[in-house]
Amino acid sequence: MDSMKLDLSADVVTLTQQLVDIESVSHHEEAIADAVEVALGSLGHLTLTRRGHTIVARTDLGRPERVVIAGHLDTVPLNDNLPSRLEDGVLHGLGTCDMKGGDAVMLKLAADVAGNEPERDLTFVFYEAEEVDSVHNGLRKLTESDPDLLAADFAILMEPSNAVVEAGCQGTMRVDVRTTGERSHSARSWKGVNAIHLAGPVLARLNDYVAHKPTIDGLTYHEGLNATGIRGGVAGNVIPDECVIEVNFRFAPDRSEAEAEAFVRDFFEGYDVTVTDMAAGALPGLDRPAAKAFVEAVGGEVNPKFGWTDVAQFTKLGIPAVNFGPGDPMFAHKQDEHVPTAHLEHCERVLKDWLGGTA
Amino acid sequence: MDSMKLDLSADVVTLTQQLVDIESVSHHEEAIADAVEVALGSLGHLTLTRRGHTIVARTDLGRPERVVIAGHLDTVPLNDNLPSRLEDGVLHGLGTCDMKGGDAVMLKLAADVAGNEPERDLTFVFYEAEEVDSVHNGLRKLTESDPDLLAADFAILMEPSNAVVEAGCQGTMRVDVRTTGERSHSARSWKGVNAIHLAGPVLARLNDYVAHKPTIDGLTYHEGLNATGIRGGVAGNVIPDECVIEVNFRFAPDRSEAEAEAFVRDFFEGYDVTVTDMAAGALPGLDRPAAKAFVEAVGGEVNPKFGWTDVAQFTKLGIPAVNFGPGDPMFAHKQDEHVPTAHLEHCERVLKDWLGGTA
Repeated sequence: MDSMKLDLSADVVTLTQQLVDIESVSHHEEAIADAVEVALGSLGHLTLTRRGHTIVARTDLGRPERVVIAGHLDTVPLNDNLPSRLEDGVLHGLGTCDMKGGDAVMLKLAADVAGNEPERDLTFVFYEAEEVDSVHNGLRKLTESDPDLLAADFAILMEPSNAVVEAGCQGTMRVDVRTTGERSHSARSWKGVNAIHLAGPVLARLNDYVAHKPTIDGLTYHEGLNATGIRGGVAGNVIPDECVIEVNFRFAPDRSEAEAEAFVRDFFEGYDVTVTDMAAGALPGLDRPAAKAFVEAVGGEVNPKFGWTDVAQFTKLGIPAVNFGPGDPMFAHKQDEHVPTAHLEHCERVLKDWLGGTA
Repeated sequence: MDSMKLDLSADVVTLTQQLVDIESVSHHEEAIADAVEVALGSLGHLTLTRRGHTIVARTDLGRPERVVIAGHLDTVPLNDNLPSRLEDGVLHGLGTCDMKGGDAVMLKLAADVAGNEPERDLTFVFYEAEEVDSVHNGLRKLTESDPDLLAADFAILMEPSNAVVEAGCQGTMRVDVRTTGERSHSARSWKGVNAIHLAGPVLARLNDYVAHKPTIDGLTYHEGLNATGIRGGVAGNVIPDECVIEVNFRFAPDRSEAEAEAFVRDFFEGYDVTVTDMAAGALPGLDRPAAKAFVEAVGGEVNPKFGWTDVAQFTKLGIPAVNFGPGDPMFAHKQDEHVPTAHLEHCERVLKDWLGGTA
């Protein structure tokens, strides 16, 4: 068959493999989006909308509840890890884990609902550009251009979560903390002020940091405040006049963006702090009936999500959302990225059962 | 006249200007070395030796004492600061200060000793590649290939020193101090060990450093121990597993290289320290009769040299040496490099008088 064509009648492992073998590094999602659009269009029972290389496919069965299931189509750059390779129950290759396994499960569900009408209306979102600057993110763009298309009672983001529900997500914020000194020749260092030395007390504060670990809806989040980069220096014989510490604050979803910023500014009081990036977290929302029902349906196990994910996009729209997808997120963005076929099959079965109302 | 030709009958300012207008960025000294060789060769009373683009010119008058006078011919890279420009008693342009003014004084002295036999035998060394890695340094090479050519009782290095004697020089040593942690995703930072945070106590030690300021031959040196660079970081979402602090130790000439290294290793005890560069200092040697006589002859004022200079090359050979040259070293390597014509004339006069024995 045409390598760019997707066979929705194939099993979920084969379909994952087909998706993986269509290269789709961020900003190069046209081919995969075309293939998804053609495959979904052939099913007949879905209403399709395309925005750039983002495809939205909706059922319209008049059910009292609607669920969004979302996954991104892009991958990080190639790292000599294509084409895919199936070995001993594990599928290897770029995108297997992050997150074409999840996309394949979504496609199987979309194909399935034709003959097996679900109890809930469904909105599938296959979107572009998740792995790059959020300005390009297809899901974020939809929240602004077409919020009605995303309207729902509950959302499932199929990011890898070891096939276990991970609820909410922590926010992430980046700041540059800058110290300023005065240059001089290092042979007469006492004529200058060493900006790198001035960074010592900043690092001392970071060493003294005690993480906030709030419990929300029974889940314990765990914040982190870390230098992820440091740079300073003019030349080997010059006392440096600037040092910049790049700090990443991962904050629990009980803080707003403004509260996170206030905390960081207070923490680094006396220093020049510039916010360079900010993304709010998402509350787990496990008190909402739709979320509670989903967690129960998939077996009751639920963990907090420490990393930031696009569930926060749904939170902005007031839609409770969880992460639930095949693959271990520790292998995302690694050369040896892979997904166990058992995860793919488990996610497909659990979701089908839940949607079919037989769980 | 040919712009590549030097007129030794011109005054020292004009001669400096001629030298400056022959571009001679390090590794491109052929033209200027040729011009110096031709000009000195035409004088007839000097024995010339050429090694690469380094020219040695010696008198052989059978005097009881021999003095080496040395200057490098290369400059740092162009910075839109050529050709030279004479304005209000100041000569501007690349190399005016560092150190073609000194070279011009040397050429004038070499020309002068034909008609006015000096009390001391003289060895002039015009050398290549001082502004780059010391492996290329023409004077250093001579100390290894032709130490006999450099044999002398006293040496004057005509590096800019505001036309005042600066004695000895401090040593310089570079080390990398490295901390090692363990990578993890910054969303689960407690699974890693942050190497940048581990650098905090290293910077704290540097902040607590108290400089050693020994007085030697009446001159007070002033050490310095400084971070001149710091780097660490893998990506904005990764806990970094390495941080490197580049440290420059400027040490007084009462410490040997081995003692300097022992001090630094002791100072950073518990950390991984790698020596990346080392150059010994030079004792002022003002207790030596030749040095004492020179200082008296030029008026008695003498300061310690904090920076490292090639006087240390002479120290290695057991020859007392001082820095004495036109120009303010603060303007070396600056775009607006310049030298007062009064410095040029003063240095020429003082040295002529001393050599002529009339001082």
